[in-house]
Amino acid sequence: MPDKPSTAHRVSRLRALLRRSGVDAFLILDLKNIRYLTGFSGSDGALLVGAGKPTLLVDGRYTTQAAREAPGARVVLYSDKASGIADILAAGGYGQVGFEPSVMTVELLASLKRKAKKVRWKPLPSELGAIRAVKDPEEIAHIRRAIRIATGALTSTLAGIRPGVCELDIAVELEYEMRKKGAEAPAFDTIIASGPNSALPHARPGRRKLRPGDFVVVDFGAVSSGYHSDETCTFAVGRTGKRQEKLYALVKEAHDRALEAVRPGVLCRDVDAAARAVIEKAGYGPLFSHGTGHGLGLDIHEAPRLSALSEAVLEEGMVVTVEPGIYLPGFGGIRIEVAVLVEKRGGRVLTEFSKELLVIG
Amino acid sequence: MPDKPSTAHRVSRLRALLRRSGVDAFLILDLKNIRYLTGFSGSDGALLVGAGKPTLLVDGRYTTQAAREAPGARVVLYSDKASGIADILAAGGYGQVGFEPSVMTVELLASLKRKAKKVRWKPLPSELGAIRAVKDPEEIAHIRRAIRIATGALTSTLAGIRPGVCELDIAVELEYEMRKKGAEAPAFDTIIASGPNSALPHARPGRRKLRPGDFVVVDFGAVSSGYHSDETCTFAVGRTGKRQEKLYALVKEAHDRALEAVRPGVLCRDVDAAARAVIEKAGYGPLFSHGTGHGLGLDIHEAPRLSALSEAVLEEGMVVTVEPGIYLPGFGGIRIEVAVLVEKRGGRVLTEFSKELLVIG
Repeated sequence: MPDKPSTAHRVSRLRALLRRSGVDAFLILDLKNIRYLTGFSGSDGALLVGAGKPTLLVDGRYTTQAAREAPGARVVLYSDKASGIADILAAGGYGQVGFEPSVMTVELLASLKRKAKKVRWKPLPSELGAIRAVKDPEEIAHIRRAIRIATGALTSTLAGIRPGVCELDIAVELEYEMRKKGAEAPAFDTIIASGPNSALPHARPGRRKLRPGDFVVVDFGAVSSGYHSDETCTFAVGRTGKRQEKLYALVKEAHDRALEAVRPGVLCRDVDAAARAVIEKAGYGPLFSHGTGHGLGLDIHEAPRLSALSEAVLEEGMVVTVEPGIYLPGFGGIRIEVAVLVEKRGGRVLTEFSKELLVIG
Repeated sequence: MPDKPSTAHRVSRLRALLRRSGVDAFLILDLKNIRYLTGFSGSDGALLVGAGKPTLLVDGRYTTQAAREAPGARVVLYSDKASGIADILAAGGYGQVGFEPSVMTVELLASLKRKAKKVRWKPLPSELGAIRAVKDPEEIAHIRRAIRIATGALTSTLAGIRPGVCELDIAVELEYEMRKKGAEAPAFDTIIASGPNSALPHARPGRRKLRPGDFVVVDFGAVSSGYHSDETCTFAVGRTGKRQEKLYALVKEAHDRALEAVRPGVLCRDVDAAARAVIEKAGYGPLFSHGTGHGLGLDIHEAPRLSALSEAVLEEGMVVTVEPGIYLPGFGGIRIEVAVLVEKRGGRVLTEFSKELLVIG
């Protein structure tokens, strides 16, 4: 079976970075990074990228799956992970080996040092984060499919988002609809936050029943082929008041200004500033208590971050969320979130569901 | 608000172990361990257990939740985790501090060493695993509730497990029923493995439709208050043949012998041996390709392991699974799994659903 071209290309990009890092090989333990570079989607394993064909190490549960999913890698079985890695390192005669310091545990590194005494270990932070931030067409197709599933599920669930229904029941139905439409899993624990709960950016759905006059924040996503969708709608339940309309329009304005700022070469912090300026000007600055967005892919939160402190620069092919919000304790909150693909001429919104103020129920 | 007695008791048990380890304090990063010791259920944080009240460190998302869930701890907010931990260590004047080497990353330890220069770090493997293996009544009640949810969900789904329905659709329905009945999540990715797929112990549900004459392995569980249930039924679809009945009876016999072996003071490897002896005697030894069971609690797999190599001893209050199986490539597999509480006089089966051979559809 021929190697999938996309993973071969990804491995070459990593190799180019490794040459500049001065290591002979890179030991990869992050499962999302392993999936990115090989296609293998199992729940345990290790990948060694050196000069030749990458070596994918898996336990007995995964030899068949690894051979099928990762045709570009040489698959090696281990019974003890550290011993398996040490054997491969000894066989390859590697001197300096890079690793991911945010994933490697103290226990595993100690064990590897005991078993592979000739290797010098070098932490290589965020090498793969930078590579993964720019998506290839295959990845964009997966994200689009995840979004399509989410759109369909929200459309099917919408009639059930009405006064008298509790937040948790809505979350359960929405996740069920996503699974029925082909999602491997929800992208994260679905947030359904109504009335005063909507003022908590990270609320967990509970037994509170929706009431007319509530805002309800629906923040959810689907996973398809390992890729995540992520979007937020804020609906008005039953009716809408003047203050709600004004606040919604303000967040929508911030959202649209941030979207307009998205294009290759722009600093991520400047996209954040575009949204924040609108909200600060209206006097709500301190109530916009989180960043404007984040990269989206095999992880629900990945590089780049769209925050006031981010020095990252947008590049063509990145997929980021844009999600300003304001949160008024006791009254409620509004967040509007879409996923955006950075294209040559600007941002293309991938999210399909409308972000106009919708009165439901 | 008074401390919950159970978490206070758990912290005292840990302190007794720490005194023997010669450390001044223990830095806990495993979120299940943190939940066990404090009640805090957030997705990030750190816990320092020293001489006085334990200190729970959380980021800005979790201060309210931590104060509510963990009344026995002093809650401290951090913006940078390593700096937050270092500040607490400096304020306490700690010398030797223990940590979990299988959870601590190389990156975080390097950062802590830079920021808290006076501390000497000591890896303390599995201290908490041993404590958590023995459940208190509150934990057993949570596991029982998770099992009750799973029983109800399987009962509701049973009529839909019939010829013509695909594995994935059954998994989606079963997970939905668990959520509707109050599960926080499925305990793990539900396994629905039919016909030849049932010969793969870790099969993922796919598009294969059930056929009369299949075995279908249903391995699933619910999470309630953080605690997991885990059980496996193997059903015959439509009808059953002589060979199937004989194989099922064999696995059931192995299962019952292992159950009988469960009591305080018994070596875990002897429970495994009790099941394995039956299957080996019938000539299927190599086809029973996994251990007989595992501890069950805040993690789906925790101490003790019931395997041929396990030196652990069963104690009153442990909850373990008993799950022998045999897997015939091309023909199919059978696994029978229940959760068992180790009581003074023997094992009490907590699982409610019948493990007799059931013909469905």
